[in-house]
Amino acid sequence: MYPIHVNLSGKTVVVAGGGIVAYRKIKDLLNEDAIITVISPTVVNEIQQWHAEKKLTWIEREVKREDLERAFLIIAATNTKEVNSWIAEHAKSKQLVNIADQPHLGNFIVPSVVKRGRLILSVSTSGASPSLSKSIKKELQQKYSEDYDTYLDFLFQCRSIIKKEFPEVCRKALLTKLTDRSFLYDVEKQRSYKQELLKKIDRKLVNEPINE
Amino acid sequence: MYPIHVNLSGKTVVVAGGGIVAYRKIKDLLNEDAIITVISPTVVNEIQQWHAEKKLTWIEREVKREDLERAFLIIAATNTKEVNSWIAEHAKSKQLVNIADQPHLGNFIVPSVVKRGRLILSVSTSGASPSLSKSIKKELQQKYSEDYDTYLDFLFQCRSIIKKEFPEVCRKALLTKLTDRSFLYDVEKQRSYKQELLKKIDRKLVNEPINE
Repeated sequence: MYPIHVNLSGKTVVVAGGGIVAYRKIKDLLNEDAIITVISPTVVNEIQQWHAEKKLTWIEREVKREDLERAFLIIAATNTKEVNSWIAEHAKSKQLVNIADQPHLGNFIVPSVVKRGRLILSVSTSGASPSLSKSIKKELQQKYSEDYDTYLDFLFQCRSIIKKEFPEVCRKALLTKLTDRSFLYDVEKQRSYKQELLKKIDRKLVNEPINE
Repeated sequence: MYPIHVNLSGKTVVVAGGGIVAYRKIKDLLNEDAIITVISPTVVNEIQQWHAEKKLTWIEREVKREDLERAFLIIAATNTKEVNSWIAEHAKSKQLVNIADQPHLGNFIVPSVVKRGRLILSVSTSGASPSLSKSIKKELQQKYSEDYDTYLDFLFQCRSIIKKEFPEVCRKALLTKLTDRSFLYDVEKQRSYKQELLKKIDRKLVNEPINE
């Protein structure tokens, strides 16, 4: 399996099914800015709510062949094994297809994910143990705490500044310095370092080291 | 960004470019059982070697529009920014496209990956800090050692046995028990537990607890 992080912004995502499995999959998709269509005769309350809030479109019927055609990514999560298999069979080979109850029939799986702003970690046991997957996810959540959210923003901003304003010979040292985890919990240190960078640019001293 | 693990087995992958960046991307792809075509007037020795070994097909010229059409997944890794942008522009919206030097022009990125057999971990900082990404990858490599390789095989085998042979009411407890990390470094314990499972099936005692 080849792990990739896909930008679903503006992409058509079709979810067949409206039960708890579909609900969980959709929940992960909602922040991705995709155009989500849920096709199912019945759906759980949360999906109805999202439809009412225009976060997705719910089509109240069984899935048809033409529903699949326009999709960039398809998730088959109905409660009928035969319908899910039918979707696997009728999706085109170039589409991304996940079959919730029979992963081997699709061409991608959704790993467990830990997001801390720009930091994205994923874990999968390739079906060997969903429990271990959950347990490792917990470990990652603990080790990579919510402080990473702010820290990654800091890193992103500094990287943009450094790449734009500093000469190439200085960049690597400056960028590596930032990954010193002493910055992680110390928002004040982050702020003052960024100030230092900006001051240097103002004073045209981009070739000199930064004192802490 | 939406992390997924894609099964590339039998899928057509087109890599434009044959330098060090292309080389690194191809290296990750080689174990995925994909049909890889590299298109580039020149390539590094390793790619020539892989071509000679029939692990991929090298087409010795610039990339053309029709090369892109048949691809499930495209990686633009030439050393010419304009060529990479041209690929981004001419790929179809339903294709998976990675533009190495300008990730925002494509629709997926390749995270750093740690593989331990069936265990797959990925990390991305969404471009905020490749150095931090590398550093977290190292932490994951240390924490999730190579012992996980064997351990995941053990989990997979036991899961198959349990799901096939044990009544549904017993499964959850048995499966959760396996994630006790005391099994991790103890291959002998793994072996004897699996034997116990098989013995129970032989003796038709699948409803009784396993003694350790």
